[in-house]
Amino acid sequence: MKFSYEPVCLKPKHTFKIAREEVEGDKFENVIIRLEHEGVTGWGEAAPFLIYGENQATVVAALETFRPLIEKWRDPWKAEKMMAELDGALEWNFAAKAGIDAALYDIQGKIAGLPLCSMLGLDPGDTPLSTFTIGIDTPEVVRSKVREVLDCPLLKIKLGGPADLEILRVIREEAPKASIRVDANCGWTPHKALAMIEELVDYGVEFVEQPLPPSEVEGMRWLHARSPLPLMADESCERLHHIPACVGQFDSINIKLAKCGGVRHALKMIGCARAHGLQIMLGCMLESSVLITAAAHISPLVDFADLDGAVLIANDPFSGMRFESGRMALPEGPGLGVIPR
Amino acid sequence: MKFSYEPVCLKPKHTFKIAREEVEGDKFENVIIRLEHEGVTGWGEAAPFLIYGENQATVVAALETFRPLIEKWRDPWKAEKMMAELDGALEWNFAAKAGIDAALYDIQGKIAGLPLCSMLGLDPGDTPLSTFTIGIDTPEVVRSKVREVLDCPLLKIKLGGPADLEILRVIREEAPKASIRVDANCGWTPHKALAMIEELVDYGVEFVEQPLPPSEVEGMRWLHARSPLPLMADESCERLHHIPACVGQFDSINIKLAKCGGVRHALKMIGCARAHGLQIMLGCMLESSVLITAAAHISPLVDFADLDGAVLIANDPFSGMRFESGRMALPEGPGLGVIPR
Repeated sequence: MKFSYEPVCLKPKHTFKIAREEVEGDKFENVIIRLEHEGVTGWGEAAPFLIYGENQATVVAALETFRPLIEKWRDPWKAEKMMAELDGALEWNFAAKAGIDAALYDIQGKIAGLPLCSMLGLDPGDTPLSTFTIGIDTPEVVRSKVREVLDCPLLKIKLGGPADLEILRVIREEAPKASIRVDANCGWTPHKALAMIEELVDYGVEFVEQPLPPSEVEGMRWLHARSPLPLMADESCERLHHIPACVGQFDSINIKLAKCGGVRHALKMIGCARAHGLQIMLGCMLESSVLITAAAHISPLVDFADLDGAVLIANDPFSGMRFESGRMALPEGPGLGVIPR
Repeated sequence: MKFSYEPVCLKPKHTFKIAREEVEGDKFENVIIRLEHEGVTGWGEAAPFLIYGENQATVVAALETFRPLIEKWRDPWKAEKMMAELDGALEWNFAAKAGIDAALYDIQGKIAGLPLCSMLGLDPGDTPLSTFTIGIDTPEVVRSKVREVLDCPLLKIKLGGPADLEILRVIREEAPKASIRVDANCGWTPHKALAMIEELVDYGVEFVEQPLPPSEVEGMRWLHARSPLPLMADESCERLHHIPACVGQFDSINIKLAKCGGVRHALKMIGCARAHGLQIMLGCMLESSVLITAAAHISPLVDFADLDGAVLIANDPFSGMRFESGRMALPEGPGLGVIPR
């Protein structure tokens, strides 16, 4: 296979703040991946995330480590084994692996003449509604952001700052009927979290994502036994083998392709989460339409979607899944169905 | 889709005895399933099992319950949703559902021009060796059975009778180098199991399947803490949600399509078992080459295979996976690749 990639700098429409300051930023440096097999092009994307020890440079280094293996690949239908080769060549580096994984699915779908969702037996009409994310900001900026997206029935609010409740009041004033999901991004302590969650009930919040840091296992068990709202794992559940420990701490998990290593791993996580009675959200990093669309293709398998990553950026280099007032419309073309702009 | 089926009576080459007498028998009444979509035929098979409350008549009744739904199906690529419709129409009846599931994969593969293994990204060269099963019988009959299969490097021995150790001695005499896996089919008590397993070590047994009945959870935990050999769940692990409880009782699980509801459920179970560090075997009922071949297509994902069901019958109505001295050679045709004889 022919293999190339291009570092890209994705610019968010608004500065993106969450509770962990290291991911605050005004640009997101991803890598667009291109595989070519017998004239068929497969697109993928690596969305590195600092807290997993990845940035654009580590992605490039990982891809160069993978290059000699990838260039020997002759059959895109042996993808499971090929991806295992990459795992054998380099531990971790899941963003880079997720990008290759997506490109292989794109090639497979284009050869078979089928959208990825169809290859997996899924109905493109069954995508769940997606949330639209409102980042941490001053109450007045939050107010203007909410006004921009009043047609979206699901809002995800990043909390974990000093003005949390004031922000929620503003949102409820502006969007009295929207369903609100809260992401604390590890920003609370157990007692602070319980106090906050008890307040959140009054604002009609649907669930709370990652209230405590992943190391706070006992704190999460304590909180889970008391929380009046369902709790979702994000940082506590990166990959397949983290799922069993989520039982007793969380009610649901947030699966992200860049975090778990791609679609094939996400599918395994979905099966495992079902075995444990955990609900499932598909989430994203700040990503272009390439990786977002890959996730959207498997979204008919999950309960919740938080796949607004491409809508939040101003310079998306691809078209793919269209986000229409929270509804996710999959592209009709084969594979991922993404097209360079 | 057009839908038809045919009850078949599979005759084993040898009378098939295991520890539970109700499955002893000289015939196995399965149902061959045929779906047709725009001229493409998909084959499936239901292998009912008495201990799950199924027989040929319950399969036929379930298929007739499913008929009005199936005849409305228009798109084989929405299989996940279609199979969920069947679950909604009738609980349980996993043998019938596994048969429909296989027929849908067969149609998908034939439309895409790909063997099922390739559709799932698997290399047909990666199938594991399969065991060949020696049923419970007198030591002399066991001796003659072992002589028939001396080219097979993996033997699975059904134990749970009074002559267990004598049978093992006979097998070791005849096949000193074969790897032996033991299936007790719930035939022991905890103390009997520990005493037996300690003896089995001396015969070079690799692992022991289902030593106790599934209700013996505390007995299994006790045994697992003491057993010098790895233990595998069969009756204790029918479907996805049984997997978490296997941790602490077993080291591995035996997935069977007829037990879990088909390939799509088996794939979820494989993901979940990996999350728990459990090893995986793909097993079978007494089945024709239709369902055996479906299982063989996903066998590159697992550690052990026990897929000799079709070799044990004298009147296999299909050709499919070829079993060559324990090696499983997948057919090259699209879909399941099975062909009526």
